[in-house]
Amino acid sequence: MKFGFVSDKNMSLLTDLYELTMAQSYFDAGMNEIAVFDFFVRRVDKRSYLLNAGLEQVLYYLENIEFTDNDIEWLRQSGRFSSEFLDYLKTFRFSGDLYAADEGEILFENEPFIRVEAPLIEAQIVETFIINTMQISILTATKALRCFSAAGGTSLVDFGLRRAHGTDAGMKAARSAYIGGFIGTSNLLASKIYGIPAFGTMAHSFILAHDSEEEAFGHFAKSYPENAILLVDTFDTLRGVENAVRTIKKMGLETFKGIRLDSGDIEVLAKESRKILDAAGFHEAMIFVSGGLNEYKIEALLQSGAPVDGWGVGTELVVSADLPYLDCAYKLVEYGGRPKMKLSPGKITLPSRKQVYRKYKNGVLESDILALCDEEQKGVPLLKRYMADGRTVIEPPPLEKIRKKALESFETLPEAFKKIEKTVSFKPHLSPGLQTLTQKLKEQLQHSVGR
Amino acid sequence: MKFGFVSDKNMSLLTDLYELTMAQSYFDAGMNEIAVFDFFVRRVDKRSYLLNAGLEQVLYYLENIEFTDNDIEWLRQSGRFSSEFLDYLKTFRFSGDLYAADEGEILFENEPFIRVEAPLIEAQIVETFIINTMQISILTATKALRCFSAAGGTSLVDFGLRRAHGTDAGMKAARSAYIGGFIGTSNLLASKIYGIPAFGTMAHSFILAHDSEEEAFGHFAKSYPENAILLVDTFDTLRGVENAVRTIKKMGLETFKGIRLDSGDIEVLAKESRKILDAAGFHEAMIFVSGGLNEYKIEALLQSGAPVDGWGVGTELVVSADLPYLDCAYKLVEYGGRPKMKLSPGKITLPSRKQVYRKYKNGVLESDILALCDEEQKGVPLLKRYMADGRTVIEPPPLEKIRKKALESFETLPEAFKKIEKTVSFKPHLSPGLQTLTQKLKEQLQHSVGR
Repeated sequence: MKFGFVSDKNMSLLTDLYELTMAQSYFDAGMNEIAVFDFFVRRVDKRSYLLNAGLEQVLYYLENIEFTDNDIEWLRQSGRFSSEFLDYLKTFRFSGDLYAADEGEILFENEPFIRVEAPLIEAQIVETFIINTMQISILTATKALRCFSAAGGTSLVDFGLRRAHGTDAGMKAARSAYIGGFIGTSNLLASKIYGIPAFGTMAHSFILAHDSEEEAFGHFAKSYPENAILLVDTFDTLRGVENAVRTIKKMGLETFKGIRLDSGDIEVLAKESRKILDAAGFHEAMIFVSGGLNEYKIEALLQSGAPVDGWGVGTELVVSADLPYLDCAYKLVEYGGRPKMKLSPGKITLPSRKQVYRKYKNGVLESDILALCDEEQKGVPLLKRYMADGRTVIEPPPLEKIRKKALESFETLPEAFKKIEKTVSFKPHLSPGLQTLTQKLKEQLQHSVGR
Repeated sequence: MKFGFVSDKNMSLLTDLYELTMAQSYFDAGMNEIAVFDFFVRRVDKRSYLLNAGLEQVLYYLENIEFTDNDIEWLRQSGRFSSEFLDYLKTFRFSGDLYAADEGEILFENEPFIRVEAPLIEAQIVETFIINTMQISILTATKALRCFSAAGGTSLVDFGLRRAHGTDAGMKAARSAYIGGFIGTSNLLASKIYGIPAFGTMAHSFILAHDSEEEAFGHFAKSYPENAILLVDTFDTLRGVENAVRTIKKMGLETFKGIRLDSGDIEVLAKESRKILDAAGFHEAMIFVSGGLNEYKIEALLQSGAPVDGWGVGTELVVSADLPYLDCAYKLVEYGGRPKMKLSPGKITLPSRKQVYRKYKNGVLESDILALCDEEQKGVPLLKRYMADGRTVIEPPPLEKIRKKALESFETLPEAFKKIEKTVSFKPHLSPGLQTLTQKLKEQLQHSVGR
């Protein structure tokens, strides 16, 4: 019986077969000069911006990738690889450089989040894992920041682990949600490993296991007298609130942390619940809401005046339900010093090593310029060399700092970008040098294929 | 620097905080009688059926869950748990029974995929991981089977690893895709661990790294003379096909495995490519298509007469793009011998231990009955006891057998269910006993909450 866990002992094989067959062929042809790959998002729907996350995981991967004897033996038995190539794989390490924007930085379509510069075979083999890591991290960080912007100062907690696409997505979504402004997660392992504050309330099963709601509330409040958020909608929500109030009063507790609403007409129920709590003198008791939430619903509920203090956002956050994937790519832009681009319809790439320069006006984002690396521009360069010769040279900051950076980056956005509905489409300007090179290369290629 | 891998050494903490705080409270109250939980899908949109997958991973989890000393120490430091409870957790193992439908079985809304019967605390703690495992497995298995049904005998390969939501989703999607009728995956680790055939072609970067398409094709075909599928759309697709043909001929190879189209108007390009290949005498060369595929596009392309032999389906398969989550739940239905149900709006559960009985007519699915376990019905019972007292008693079959079962189950569906557009909505009938109990319990509960 197998689970199929991925770990640093087997992650090197978590790649597409073609990465290794191409590597075999490069190896046979003696092609292993420095290649440059960009990871970027081609086109962004439904989002006015993207929040960068996942870099620490990419750095970890690149520092630790190696093929075990067991991997090599399995590859040998497949009959697809030469012994010379397998000998090469035995000593394989990532020895290249990695340039990246900081986690917590906001980026836009066509802007590289990551640029890899490494011997061709190395840069090729790591493609699959880099895309796998970055996409879900960016998707969930961006979704989280949208919820944060909708929540207007109320608290958000990640409740998504159960509905995340597998174990790893649950971990990455918790991390990204925190970066994107959530105050914590229900995911205990993410709390332990990443140091994210853990939060939780109680489940309907807890109520049902007891003979009455009051008995359930009483047991929980006895175990957690200062920290019990009582789930009130198992049978009848407002009766549930009354039962909760009665239980807390009967027990003579000084604090009543709050209630959770998980179904029904939240606007009405939150307002009525607030009245019941206030009438009982529990002005401090918070109203926490969960159940199918997303940034649109949170915004609408707050606009309706629903007195909600906190939100548990699950499924729609962790699967990025309205945008479950990005049109992202990891593309060769230079090999052996020669700029490269493809012409496939709708998938044209911008050649050569590039930098993103950002200009602000009075602290507000004004424009981005995508320029060739040797073409100095005004503005703040966003890509930094995080890794040199396979070693990390900028240690990823603590999660707290990344989170702070994300919220500061968000503040630099023009107001229209902060809206949940996408009304603006921001693209970087191409520098004169990049425009000229792109045009020249395109003509050369079209000429050489005789089109 | 951390990645945050989940493994059997730390998976016990991959749960929601509230599972453990509720457990603490159950522990304090001395409540640990046998609880029965159902895992099921409440309502199914956009799918006429669901394909069961993920059970082997759930069994693995339940057999191996335990809290390490390190876990316990971390929980202690959180200050949330009593030492008595932490002592209990030290010896925690799952000691319950698990009833489940076979992997590869087709199920419908309201039908339990899994029923857990265990001491309350154990059954509660495992909730999060079970839902996390089952949802993505079912989503991707179902999506795969839909693609299989659209592909009408042509071959399907999972190309989704890079766009899966993290590492674990890439593994589970590869496994589920194979169960759902795919012939293999590009994911090497899934190939190694699960024994799924691996497939691959080449990337645009391979073409771009060379000075010309022909040079690239030549190098690859030299390394893989019998197995080279050449990617022809980097610059100009039909010129690419001509270049491929010229290269293979020049090299004097006897076999030409085929070409891959990854962009453009596939219907036109496949037809034109076929002509070029046939005119050159390469009747056996296959046309393999990839790029934003899903079951709708595959069906439309085949109906248009596009001569496609194989499909690489990636993103939309692995994220189940048109349905990225299920309305699934793990709900308490019995505690200490007493049937349980909740009344939350839109989320009413069916109480007690249940079995699904399936009736066929001439080999075609006719009806399902959801009945109480002690209420014998006609038909084939779908839930089997896979685990007793915490040990697996039915060893999950090899993946090949699960795949065979899935395709056989699919064959039993009425024709309307096999269509990609959902035109039918199938629900199990409720047995007389279950109807009576549900009604009785509902009235009791409504009466007791005074509604």
